[in-house]
Amino acid sequence: MRLASVRHPTAGAVWGAVEGDALIPLSAEWADIRAALASDPHAIRSAAAAESARLALDGCEWLPPIPSPGKILCVGLNYKKHVAEAQRELPQHPSLFPRFADSFVGHGAAVTRPWVSGKFDFEGELAVVIGRDGRHIPRERALGHVAGYTCLAENSVRDFQKHNAQVTPGKNFAGSGAMGPWLVTADEIPDPAALSLRTYLNGERVQDGRLADLIFPVPELIAYISIFTPLAPGDVIATGTPEGVGSSRKPPLFMRAGDVLEVDIPGVGRLRNPVVDEPRADDGEHRP
Amino acid sequence: MRLASVRHPTAGAVWGAVEGDALIPLSAEWADIRAALASDPHAIRSAAAAESARLALDGCEWLPPIPSPGKILCVGLNYKKHVAEAQRELPQHPSLFPRFADSFVGHGAAVTRPWVSGKFDFEGELAVVIGRDGRHIPRERALGHVAGYTCLAENSVRDFQKHNAQVTPGKNFAGSGAMGPWLVTADEIPDPAALSLRTYLNGERVQDGRLADLIFPVPELIAYISIFTPLAPGDVIATGTPEGVGSSRKPPLFMRAGDVLEVDIPGVGRLRNPVVDEPRADDGEHRP
Repeated sequence: MRLASVRHPTAGAVWGAVEGDALIPLSAEWADIRAALASDPHAIRSAAAAESARLALDGCEWLPPIPSPGKILCVGLNYKKHVAEAQRELPQHPSLFPRFADSFVGHGAAVTRPWVSGKFDFEGELAVVIGRDGRHIPRERALGHVAGYTCLAENSVRDFQKHNAQVTPGKNFAGSGAMGPWLVTADEIPDPAALSLRTYLNGERVQDGRLADLIFPVPELIAYISIFTPLAPGDVIATGTPEGVGSSRKPPLFMRAGDVLEVDIPGVGRLRNPVVDEPRADDGEHRP
Repeated sequence: MRLASVRHPTAGAVWGAVEGDALIPLSAEWADIRAALASDPHAIRSAAAAESARLALDGCEWLPPIPSPGKILCVGLNYKKHVAEAQRELPQHPSLFPRFADSFVGHGAAVTRPWVSGKFDFEGELAVVIGRDGRHIPRERALGHVAGYTCLAENSVRDFQKHNAQVTPGKNFAGSGAMGPWLVTADEIPDPAALSLRTYLNGERVQDGRLADLIFPVPELIAYISIFTPLAPGDVIATGTPEGVGSSRKPPLFMRAGDVLEVDIPGVGRLRNPVVDEPRADDGEHRP
């Protein structure tokens, strides 16, 4: 089952189950998709089966599948070859940094290159969406806390990422990343390690990774994160990007206005976003 | 004017203006304190003057002044002597890391030492609460975006903070930090650089700092942060801790159950929190 959040031209923000080119709206049943994720997937399936309304997806604006996650935690340096290309040491513990929800847009929306930087880099990733509350979740029960999976472009502004040892600024530019188009419920993906992902820039394959290569696999991430913070339905964990990022290429390959970025995860979906430039601030403050 | 959020034994979660030992409830006027902060402080003052109800603060549970900030950004290494004691280089740009809202409790509530660590350290700080939306805010207009100031205990779990270059885990343990008791509106604090702060552990002064010593002062922080992310009413910026933290002492001084931590900022308030131990997880998973 594919669950999506969209803004419909007349119905407004709504979420539901994707069926072909239509959305079966489920907002009447659970106002918040996060509340629905806490339910048994069978309950969502039954509600979708009982709902006769259909909204044409054509003309809707896609939102991130979870428009306002309580927590978004991203993992850095989680593929060995990416650690090597970034010229970093293999981490002993996951490299984790939060991203604010407003740093992501949905499928089809433009991701924004900030005017303060020319180093806007792509990072295709698999994201895990939590479905069940938990703290101190044991590794062997961790997948039972997953509601589903989505594609994520964890795009980074490389110069701001390196302003300080803490990567926060370069990872949190407004509208720089993307999530979607939908989440695929976990019952359809028994083992996330069997997935693979490819990133395309203007149709050219620039990243090609296998989730089996994660240094810290999904259950390990959930277990480690839940040592320090409770996880709740709708929380998002971005699992890290494989090798091939633009900043490690010679010459570097950064994104520009007019580019099209795609993250394709067979069995999950294909997230597609054009790139636009942020309008330059009038007062000319804060040039890098 | 002092604005606080509390949980009243019968009225539930409510916010308002503090007057002596009572709260003038303002939740009827603005359901969310964040919405109120976006208003002119005169409007809040008028609403408080027109409200006849009083709730006794005695018996209320204090919540963080902003119970659910959209963004909480903390600054590390922002006092020269603290940079020296931490044996770090002087930063060229602010060291920034988000904290989740659930890593903070209100005044009087217990802060929690996680059972996975014995290295629970204190960090007294001044926190800035944003009152006006903004992106690319120029330094010289930055203080005009501040709603007020509060005391913050940005307590850290030192071993988890050092698991990786990214400090996220050690800075986000559930209920490890505190904020409050209230925010003092900015009209009463024309220049935050004139403030000073002291941290006390069990009545003994362990930190003594002057905001004039910030490497990146408040206007600079607001300007830099708003380059990458929009700031909104209720967002919190913790300005960093001065020297004297427990991990830099010989021998180290970490917090234990039964300790009492206080952060005192004359003109703002005195935040007081006892320390408790997290109950040990039953299954014994994830021992450090």
